[in-house]
Amino acid sequence: MVKLVGLIRKRADLSTAEFRKHWLDVHAPLARQFPGLRRYTVNFIDRETEPGAAYDGFSELWFDSREALESAFASPIGTAIAADIPKFMDELVRVIVDEHTIVVD
Amino acid sequence: MVKLVGLIRKRADLSTAEFRKHWLDVHAPLARQFPGLRRYTVNFIDRETEPGAAYDGFSELWFDSREALESAFASPIGTAIAADIPKFMDELVRVIVDEHTIVVD
Repeated sequence: MVKLVGLIRKRADLSTAEFRKHWLDVHAPLARQFPGLRRYTVNFIDRETEPGAAYDGFSELWFDSREALESAFASPIGTAIAADIPKFMDELVRVIVDEHTIVVD
Repeated sequence: MVKLVGLIRKRADLSTAEFRKHWLDVHAPLARQFPGLRRYTVNFIDRETEPGAAYDGFSELWFDSREALESAFASPIGTAIAADIPKFMDELVRVIVDEHTIVVD
């Protein structure tokens, strides 16, 4: 499994509520259509109660392999995702992480 | 469920391998003993292939409630965790995030 994390800073001209609404109502329904997507979470950070955080949130996306991830981003959904990014984000840092699950629910 | 994320920068005098070994072999076995811990993951970021990342990794810890999280950190395990932090980290930013699961495996 490959896990991709997207660290996200909201567009400065959007309120936190507008940013979250776009993410959940427009962006996530697009992203969930990525071919080969195995798991997907959206994580909001409240910068008022968490002033040490440099981001307004992050996404986590799991694919079977690096190749599956790359073909998802090369697909028409990947193109639609890329076009949607500037509509609500000022910054996106994508990192592939090596995840170790220590305790499972 | 409450999800706590710890964004971690390694101690500058440790190699990446030493840092990861301490995290997995010393810190994670301590942290997994937190009372009330429901899920726990450790995520390594390779700063050489991911130069845009400001951290060497992050942990994710899930508790039933904010109160459960606070009593875990107030427990003897919380004290042991606090003592272990300076042994391998230069910086730790803890943030509570609001997680939305969009796609489940």
